[in-house]
Amino acid sequence: MANEKIPYKVYLEENEMPKAWYNLRADMKKKPAPFLNPGTHEPMKAEELAPVFCDELIKQELDNDTAYFEIPDEIKEFYKMYRPSPLVRAYCLEKKLGTPAKIYYKFEGNNTSGSHKLNSAIAQAYYAKKQGLKGVTTETGAGQWGTALSMACAYLGLDCKVFMVKVSYEQKPFRREVMRTYGASVTPSPSETTEIGKKILAEHPGTNGSLGCAISEAVEVAVSTPGYRYVLGSVLNQVLLHQSVIGLEAKAAFDKIGVKPDMIIGCAGGGSNLGGLIAPFMGEKLRGENDYEFIAVEPASCPSFTRGVYAYDFADTGMVCPLAKMYTLGSDFIPSPNHAGGLRYHGMSPILSELYDQGLMKATTATQTEVFEAAETFARCEGILPAPESSHAIKVAIDEALKCKETGEEKTILFGLTGTGYFDLYAYQNFNDGKMDDYIPTDEELAKYREKLPKID
Amino acid sequence: MANEKIPYKVYLEENEMPKAWYNLRADMKKKPAPFLNPGTHEPMKAEELAPVFCDELIKQELDNDTAYFEIPDEIKEFYKMYRPSPLVRAYCLEKKLGTPAKIYYKFEGNNTSGSHKLNSAIAQAYYAKKQGLKGVTTETGAGQWGTALSMACAYLGLDCKVFMVKVSYEQKPFRREVMRTYGASVTPSPSETTEIGKKILAEHPGTNGSLGCAISEAVEVAVSTPGYRYVLGSVLNQVLLHQSVIGLEAKAAFDKIGVKPDMIIGCAGGGSNLGGLIAPFMGEKLRGENDYEFIAVEPASCPSFTRGVYAYDFADTGMVCPLAKMYTLGSDFIPSPNHAGGLRYHGMSPILSELYDQGLMKATTATQTEVFEAAETFARCEGILPAPESSHAIKVAIDEALKCKETGEEKTILFGLTGTGYFDLYAYQNFNDGKMDDYIPTDEELAKYREKLPKID
Repeated sequence: MANEKIPYKVYLEENEMPKAWYNLRADMKKKPAPFLNPGTHEPMKAEELAPVFCDELIKQELDNDTAYFEIPDEIKEFYKMYRPSPLVRAYCLEKKLGTPAKIYYKFEGNNTSGSHKLNSAIAQAYYAKKQGLKGVTTETGAGQWGTALSMACAYLGLDCKVFMVKVSYEQKPFRREVMRTYGASVTPSPSETTEIGKKILAEHPGTNGSLGCAISEAVEVAVSTPGYRYVLGSVLNQVLLHQSVIGLEAKAAFDKIGVKPDMIIGCAGGGSNLGGLIAPFMGEKLRGENDYEFIAVEPASCPSFTRGVYAYDFADTGMVCPLAKMYTLGSDFIPSPNHAGGLRYHGMSPILSELYDQGLMKATTATQTEVFEAAETFARCEGILPAPESSHAIKVAIDEALKCKETGEEKTILFGLTGTGYFDLYAYQNFNDGKMDDYIPTDEELAKYREKLPKID
Repeated sequence: MANEKIPYKVYLEENEMPKAWYNLRADMKKKPAPFLNPGTHEPMKAEELAPVFCDELIKQELDNDTAYFEIPDEIKEFYKMYRPSPLVRAYCLEKKLGTPAKIYYKFEGNNTSGSHKLNSAIAQAYYAKKQGLKGVTTETGAGQWGTALSMACAYLGLDCKVFMVKVSYEQKPFRREVMRTYGASVTPSPSETTEIGKKILAEHPGTNGSLGCAISEAVEVAVSTPGYRYVLGSVLNQVLLHQSVIGLEAKAAFDKIGVKPDMIIGCAGGGSNLGGLIAPFMGEKLRGENDYEFIAVEPASCPSFTRGVYAYDFADTGMVCPLAKMYTLGSDFIPSPNHAGGLRYHGMSPILSELYDQGLMKATTATQTEVFEAAETFARCEGILPAPESSHAIKVAIDEALKCKETGEEKTILFGLTGTGYFDLYAYQNFNDGKMDDYIPTDEELAKYREKLPKID
């Protein structure tokens, strides 16, 4: 195979698909910092997390040592419906750029949730079902996670209650309808259905809602309803574990064609896609077996890695969740309303934060306009309309390929194409009309939020 | 392979992809009737069609004898970006239905146009480019064809002018934005940019437009602008030729796993998907090599096959196109505004019409509500949100599988899943809210339109 022309798309056979998820933490000498109880500042114990999360998922969350977790048969069967996802050689983009670089992308958008989120949604729903639970609660902003969870729950016959940030609920009625088609109940947040929702509505009548508020409502319902738990689509260690299926498939596909990438690029919001994509490659780097360059791309409007601090902070604005040590802009930070909803998060996965702090990966930012320019170029060459989130990775992949054009280097670049932009056409319209906003927070602004970080000894 | 478990998805390797399109007409003993000049009622000659269509496409259109047309290398390369499309075994749907039937679908929705339309769009754009043309014009209703053509033109650097039915232009702004992202100009029809548009606007101020009117505008611009031709996404023989790639891939995939389908089901609007899907199978039936059962599914609101007549009629309401012999409800027939926009056409492919008339295939109808019920069942099992058009085929595939449950027959059923429903969520919302309209035209109504058919000796 290595001497033949690489095909446009490399698919694994079903029997070549990963049989276990890979836990990157097992190969990290310095582990990510533990979650802390917000009251005592002591590391959270499994029993403290049990009212909120499923038991099996808590085990995965807290396990820093087990390298591989076997993927249960039922999840493997579900994966076979929409996986393996293709590893695509971007021949047309390479030609358009006139670059000697070889560009590949791992495309996770070929399922109805439109993104990689389904990889963890089915795992979390499966463990909830296995525990004999009746249903799960969650929040959703842009709607990819909510859609993915609805699909997983419909498949398993599990109830699914989604709190959707009110402004998204109203502006993205089609996302809501997909979730309803999959049988989920979708409630605009803040709502009158929870105590915290009522409190927020009393204090801020007419509020548009926020992700933090929706998390608080979802957690309240999970904790107060017998047979329910709360699930989350990013940031958590367990989510990165499930998402390792992306990287494991990519690695197996590269091995199949006898190619080794030099550079791996992914967008970074909470870190679920990037953490999953790089996992097995970073593992090789940590074990000293191979070297790769890793680049996280974040919006210039929400620069957690590049302009945040590495500190303990609340994962949610409602401050009901445990404290996590991560690169953060402060849990009060409200990103400007840019169109990459999935990247509008103040913090970052503790695993990725620790890797970044150890200098094992780089990070960079891109503004909205340049991201959409890259998206347009990509769409016209490669025939896929990318999600705004994914287009951050496209932007930097194109930049790196153009550098190769100058230097003549034949680097092999892999980037994560996490999803499609079918539900982001209002954003594309803004771009097509030349009305894109490129707001970048000032240093003073960021300092203000940083001051409010919790003080941990 | 035949004795192993069939995988969820069967993909061909690149070198197994079709190298030529198959022209079903070559194996038909009685050929489809020729197009007639609407003035003289004589068969249309190539030179009469040349101002409207590209030269190479006219050859394909009029050739009833050549069985295979080699696919040009450039088109094969483009196909490799989004093809082969998977042949999927619907294990989860089978389990849900508890049927002994084996259900397969050929899924054409994994490209940004969201449907099979891209297969012919790239071919038509390619021949226009090869002829040295500057651009092409077309009309679009629901928007799948316009999107596909925009993608093909962006790839080849060809100008693309789309006339979009005004009501769709306003109700489906996101479809419009995809086309704009691919660099197409999109004009709501009727418009002030054409003579026919001005005339219609003067006669019917405030009209919502229609497909017939948009065709007339697109043809006018093609004929009156140097370097432009008109292209069409269905009905024509050339379109069925290009779409044969669907059936050829499906056949090759079945051969690979050693399976022969008993029954092949597809939705039918103008016939492009169904004609392409069944082509090689019907070829075997025509040559007496194998037998298959073919079922066309049309909306109960627009029943061309089941309640129309086989007669010469205009392909467009503007009556600027040649006369075609086909199953038709009359070119004045305006289907009720059901949500399967791609099936709201008064006529039918002349090839399929002739096959149906010879008793080589069956046809049936489904109402909107039962179609969306099938769509919901399918989405929840198989993880794909289907287009309303495709869901007509799902509905009948489910019915046939349930018949097998009663009889115990282990039939192998193949249906065409032509596309995704991302741009049809207003329709899903109507369904979720229980507000679906199931209008079926009366016999009196249909008779009224039938009276207006052109009289041909």
